[in-house]
Amino acid sequence: MSKLIRDPIHGYIEISDKVLPIISHPYFQRLRYISQNALAHMVYPGMRHTRFEHSLGVMYLIKEFLQYVKKNSEGLDFVDEDYVELVGVTGLLHDIGHLAFSHTFESALQVTRDVYGITNINYQGKKTHVYNGISIIERELAPILEKNFSSHSDPVKFITNVLKEEPKNEEEKLALQLVSNFVDADRGDYLLRDSYYAGVGYGSYDVERLKRVLTYVDGKIAVLKKAIPIVEQFLLARMYMFENVYFHSVVGMYNSILSHAIAKLISKGKLVLDNLLHITDYNVLASISVMEDEKFPQAIFFRSGYKRIKKDIEGDCLNSIDKKEIIELSRETDGGVIYYEFFDTPYSEVGEAVYIFDGENIYQLSKFSNLINAVKDLKKAIIVYHVSQAEKVKKYERIIDECVKSHLSS
Amino acid sequence: MSKLIRDPIHGYIEISDKVLPIISHPYFQRLRYISQNALAHMVYPGMRHTRFEHSLGVMYLIKEFLQYVKKNSEGLDFVDEDYVELVGVTGLLHDIGHLAFSHTFESALQVTRDVYGITNINYQGKKTHVYNGISIIERELAPILEKNFSSHSDPVKFITNVLKEEPKNEEEKLALQLVSNFVDADRGDYLLRDSYYAGVGYGSYDVERLKRVLTYVDGKIAVLKKAIPIVEQFLLARMYMFENVYFHSVVGMYNSILSHAIAKLISKGKLVLDNLLHITDYNVLASISVMEDEKFPQAIFFRSGYKRIKKDIEGDCLNSIDKKEIIELSRETDGGVIYYEFFDTPYSEVGEAVYIFDGENIYQLSKFSNLINAVKDLKKAIIVYHVSQAEKVKKYERIIDECVKSHLSS
Amino acid sequence: MSKLIRDPIHGYIEISDKVLPIISHPYFQRLRYISQNALAHMVYPGMRHTRFEHSLGVMYLIKEFLQYVKKNSEGLDFVDEDYVELVGVTGLLHDIGHLAFSHTFESALQVTRDVYGITNINYQGKKTHVYNGISIIERELAPILEKNFSSHSDPVKFITNVLKEEPKNEEEKLALQLVSNFVDADRGDYLLRDSYYAGVGYGSYDVERLKRVLTYVDGKIAVLKKAIPIVEQFLLARMYMFENVYFHSVVGMYNSILSHAIAKLISKGKLVLDNLLHITDYNVLASISVMEDEKFPQAIFFRSGYKRIKKDIEGDCLNSIDKKEIIELSRETDGGVIYYEFFDTPYSEVGEAVYIFDGENIYQLSKFSNLINAVKDLKKAIIVYHVSQAEKVKKYERIIDECVKSHLSS
Amino acid sequence: MSKLIRDPIHGYIEISDKVLPIISHPYFQRLRYISQNALAHMVYPGMRHTRFEHSLGVMYLIKEFLQYVKKNSEGLDFVDEDYVELVGVTGLLHDIGHLAFSHTFESALQVTRDVYGITNINYQGKKTHVYNGISIIERELAPILEKNFSSHSDPVKFITNVLKEEPKNEEEKLALQLVSNFVDADRGDYLLRDSYYAGVGYGSYDVERLKRVLTYVDGKIAVLKKAIPIVEQFLLARMYMFENVYFHSVVGMYNSILSHAIAKLISKGKLVLDNLLHITDYNVLASISVMEDEKFPQAIFFRSGYKRIKKDIEGDCLNSIDKKEIIELSRETDGGVIYYEFFDTPYSEVGEAVYIFDGENIYQLSKFSNLINAVKDLKKAIIVYHVSQAEKVKKYERIIDECVKSHLSS
Repeated sequence: MSKLIRDPIHGYIEISDKVLPIISHPYFQRLRYISQNALAHMVYPGMRHTRFEHSLGVMYLIKEFLQYVKKNSEGLDFVDEDYVELVGVTGLLHDIGHLAFSHTFESALQVTRDVYGITNINYQGKKTHVYNGISIIERELAPILEKNFSSHSDPVKFITNVLKEEPKNEEEKLALQLVSNFVDADRGDYLLRDSYYAGVGYGSYDVERLKRVLTYVDGKIAVLKKAIPIVEQFLLARMYMFENVYFHSVVGMYNSILSHAIAKLISKGKLVLDNLLHITDYNVLASISVMEDEKFPQAIFFRSGYKRIKKDIEGDCLNSIDKKEIIELSRETDGGVIYYEFFDTPYSEVGEAVYIFDGENIYQLSKFSNLINAVKDLKKAIIVYHVSQAEKVKKYERIIDECVKSHLSS
Repeated sequence: MSKLIRDPIHGYIEISDKVLPIISHPYFQRLRYISQNALAHMVYPGMRHTRFEHSLGVMYLIKEFLQYVKKNSEGLDFVDEDYVELVGVTGLLHDIGHLAFSHTFESALQVTRDVYGITNINYQGKKTHVYNGISIIERELAPILEKNFSSHSDPVKFITNVLKEEPKNEEEKLALQLVSNFVDADRGDYLLRDSYYAGVGYGSYDVERLKRVLTYVDGKIAVLKKAIPIVEQFLLARMYMFENVYFHSVVGMYNSILSHAIAKLISKGKLVLDNLLHITDYNVLASISVMEDEKFPQAIFFRSGYKRIKKDIEGDCLNSIDKKEIIELSRETDGGVIYYEFFDTPYSEVGEAVYIFDGENIYQLSKFSNLINAVKDLKKAIIVYHVSQAEKVKKYERIIDECVKSHLSS
Repeated sequence: MSKLIRDPIHGYIEISDKVLPIISHPYFQRLRYISQNALAHMVYPGMRHTRFEHSLGVMYLIKEFLQYVKKNSEGLDFVDEDYVELVGVTGLLHDIGHLAFSHTFESALQVTRDVYGITNINYQGKKTHVYNGISIIERELAPILEKNFSSHSDPVKFITNVLKEEPKNEEEKLALQLVSNFVDADRGDYLLRDSYYAGVGYGSYDVERLKRVLTYVDGKIAVLKKAIPIVEQFLLARMYMFENVYFHSVVGMYNSILSHAIAKLISKGKLVLDNLLHITDYNVLASISVMEDEKFPQAIFFRSGYKRIKKDIEGDCLNSIDKKEIIELSRETDGGVIYYEFFDTPYSEVGEAVYIFDGENIYQLSKFSNLINAVKDLKKAIIVYHVSQAEKVKKYERIIDECVKSHLSS
Repeated sequence: MSKLIRDPIHGYIEISDKVLPIISHPYFQRLRYISQNALAHMVYPGMRHTRFEHSLGVMYLIKEFLQYVKKNSEGLDFVDEDYVELVGVTGLLHDIGHLAFSHTFESALQVTRDVYGITNINYQGKKTHVYNGISIIERELAPILEKNFSSHSDPVKFITNVLKEEPKNEEEKLALQLVSNFVDADRGDYLLRDSYYAGVGYGSYDVERLKRVLTYVDGKIAVLKKAIPIVEQFLLARMYMFENVYFHSVVGMYNSILSHAIAKLISKGKLVLDNLLHITDYNVLASISVMEDEKFPQAIFFRSGYKRIKKDIEGDCLNSIDKKEIIELSRETDGGVIYYEFFDTPYSEVGEAVYIFDGENIYQLSKFSNLINAVKDLKKAIIVYHVSQAEKVKKYERIIDECVKSHLSS
């Protein structure tokens, strides 16, 4: 008898007996207190969901995807029930190492290092949560995994190879493409989920159709040629979510303030980093609530005190700002001025190509899709400041203004 | 220029200039950290929404309802733009006094009194949040309200009279019926909202139609006769949400554990009650995370340690349990055994009648609706226990088992 | 390789190779031109869907239901892939015998007999479409069924036994309960579908949950006890759809006019009834468009000419009208006055009981559900008249008025 | 008291007293029997909706759009309630002149001329329905319009100027941009509506947001700069609907067969074109059902007899087919072979530019959007044939095959 969890995105998510002890484990339950999108709720109040339900959703989608990949492909004899469960649990665990407020804590570690000059922290960029996760899996979850997934000779190795993106064989290669790829179960879930909680339509795409057009050819996940529009839709959904939600200037503003608050707590030894079970949203918030430097709790709890330069910094204007100088200012003002960059590559055929199968051969998506070729990197920056520092940012406001004007008139 | 907030339930919620400073006030922003349904996410992972968005939704719905009430009624000359804004802000503030985890904190105060014998707490049953709210409005928000709603001679009095359910005139009477009634904006919002975040269909009703059939006759909000089915649907939606979500035994189990944890914190002086701004979910959770009595954090963060007697206690079987004895056991075991009662009256014509207007007269709903007459009180109880106390509850398990069996065979 | 059909209600409906030739058969394709709800679009413009997509949906739901019934029950060894396909195709064919405008044509046959006194027509009440269907299956589809479902010794017999509601063995009994029961795939589909096209929420219920709680005990489909609310929701959804859509007075008005128009065409020999392939919506409409008696095309195409007595006839007032007299008036005025009755039994434990399984025994739903016990028969009537006959119905208007008043005051 | 119509797309559509007589007019009611997308239901069974509900939706959206355009712009004093109603009714009437099966009948007229050489028909390309509509408005609806919209000196002139795209003044210019533009109420409605009935997600866009970012600057409807993504989404939604629904090869196949059937009926004098009230779907279908040439009813009612060359003809391969020759073959085989071209320009700044307002100036969309610049014309063709003509199309199959291969390898 499996357990069912009601999910607004996928309906019911079935939890097999093998997987139940993983979900019941403190390290997984902890994800209930790691928000998916940090302070995005400052702008989209509905966005309060966590890595917990996202992780369940990724497991669900992987199993769905695999079912159709198997159906639409030849020679995937190794894709049996045990394999599906194993890849499912790999997806379930892909975010197990996230710190409080997910990527915002990773930014905080970067600020800790770059602004406060503290280097004895375990910071590995946007991969920090991956390495934390691998360590949890090897240290805490290995016994359960080895017992419940014993049909595989070394399930822990399988999972960590996939999460490290270092697949050693066909089984791991296929798994990796489902967990982390251009069209994958991770994005597949978070686009639908974030879009639902934000209450916007951008992130929605036709997942029922997408899963039915997946196939596996020459060691690569590919989509059938007739389904190119659905892949374009998926890519654009992601792009829109970046433009409208993840890279929303006010969302970025509060997350950057939160990063600085966390960095400051770390630099003062007020956040202990050695027990992941305690690095949760509520503990960070409780710590912020008693900070002496009132500008942080005021901003994060009451949305007051901070402003931003209204015009975003984009395109060539990104070069008009002296980054070193402004980071120095950030340090001097103790986070009273913050420079924050957004960056994403919506689609690139280096590493994450989408393959198209026309029944005979596979091709890169760019061969068929003008749209995909038109998509450029998303890059912009904002300057955020506490009202007490308004004078200090006037200079930047002027620079940006002039730059924007000169570009529009050209 | 008004501000717009994206809301998954109502689309866009418009914030007028008059209302903006209220929403920006720390006491209102604080609602971002008061979850609507406490630990309901233990069962329905999507239910992470807060009193913040619910309060916005109530304001929105009140304004919508009023628009149609005015349109469908005669003689409501006092319903002008200023009045609509004032009733809107009354709805916006109806939950401003909620403590952490909303009603669960009220339960905790009751436990503090009944189990731990502490009486110098400000506990006024399920009205506690109302009186806290009135105090916030009078103490903190009065200056803004008096300035921005100066078209009314005493906006603070208006709002507090309505929230206390002590209307003094026609204007306040109408307002009260929109804010707190059988079919009101409060329920109107939370049914849709909780249902959306739970991912279930039960709570959904046809709000677009409901608002269009509201009218005001003889000092009472009434619905047009042809729309009786929509009122029945509304009532049943509420009943289903109670049965499946609010009164879900596992939801109740974790909320009752949380109540005990909070009560224990209060009894030990570990939660300061004198500054509402600090009584937030995150502060309570952070305090629980360092409790010496590990059974509480284990249950609340990791969902482990506690069980419940599988059969719910219902109907006559409620009398088979000696309440005094089990509360005593609760005290002895320090919350290792918990008895928790659920109770709601889905519909009663005492106090909350729905009136039906047939074009000439108004009647009580029960005159026309068999369904409504069939609805009975929802009442059940559960017994929750820490595994270390399993022996002590065996007796109750036996009593309940026998009682249920004797009823089924009859 | 199976075929997929996109469906707004169920996502994708898979058509197996066995079933494809049935769907491609002229008698099934013909359902594309048989509207599901006749002239309901006069009130709900979106309701233009046909028996074609409904039939596909019933097949889909049966297969879904069976999957969970099998999973949740013991001893259903005969439920294998072949059986599922066979029951699926039984559901697919349950409406194959519907005439133009579905039930409205059945009403027309009744009018033909009762008002125009013509008796040599094949009218078997609301079962007319069933007997027509059986004849199509035996005459036209038998060869395909025998070839493609040869794993069963006599698939045609199986299907017709089930559709006639005369099951001969366990396999047919189970099938019958899925195709035609209180909670069945037929209602299961049309509630969701009609509700979607009408754009109302009433008919929606939690199908994802419903299917997961079906089981089979002692030869009966039952639902698990914990799921009683979902069954109540299903029943109420159906009741609301009746009250708001199927029994909407204006919908009934136009369908009753259409019935009379068809009856008149039949009585004049203008509709040939011997080739079902020609009894389609478009042929009936084209015939109406050239009727000499202009009141019919005026009403049906341009919504003009007819009115109804505003007050519906309900409860005891149904007895205040002399039916014989008014049918006589109908004949005299050539359909210028029409008396039309609506009748449905939302739930009855005679014949269509819902069984509840508590893990040990099964019980009738009425043992547990107050709501179900409160549901009464839906019965009402309307009087419709062409404006040229306004004088003749004044008498009835008076009778109804007085009757309604005397009841409200009591 | 206005009337409300329930609509699955927009909720409730309010019909003002001024507009009610237009909607009740036979020429408008007739739209209930003109399907929006002809035989698209052959592939997407849910697509049975008609020009009737689409026209209501366009009126609704225009009024919504205007409300926000007024709010977001300066100097639009002429936009008062009367103006809004007048532009609304203009939108309501924009499709009043459509013939049976909408654009498919226009194709049929083209076939009548090009294949059957008949020229005394009123064919004006894709504008045929516009000119028919103007004639209906001037001939039939003028009295009502002049009476009910008397606040305007010549409402009929206003409406016809706008529909002819010949605006004479500011009022008409603004109206034209709402009715027929790149982002307009017509497309705005049909994307949402067709997408809903098809059950696909492609056509959905964020209409709630779109309407809120419309403004009017320098005589042009523009969108605020921050909302560029929503305009991109709108454009792509339309592109996807073309690729997946309107230009679906099987949809095109059946519509092209229908066109030929209609053309043949016209050429034989079996369809009378002089009374628009009779050119409805049902009359055309009834006429087809009795055609001597059985291949047409077989295809249209039973989906049998016709096939298509599997590979679509795209890009340079369009030049590989000798169009004159194949049209000749079409004539010879009496529609047994059909060549059908699809063509659409998703976005062009000639005529239909989207303007972007940055708070100071307006710019063309192409200045900011890479995506829009990447969008190319959609153009493809199919060859459809009756199985009895299979030999005759083999040659074309070979030509296309070779052309496609040579392009993929390049």
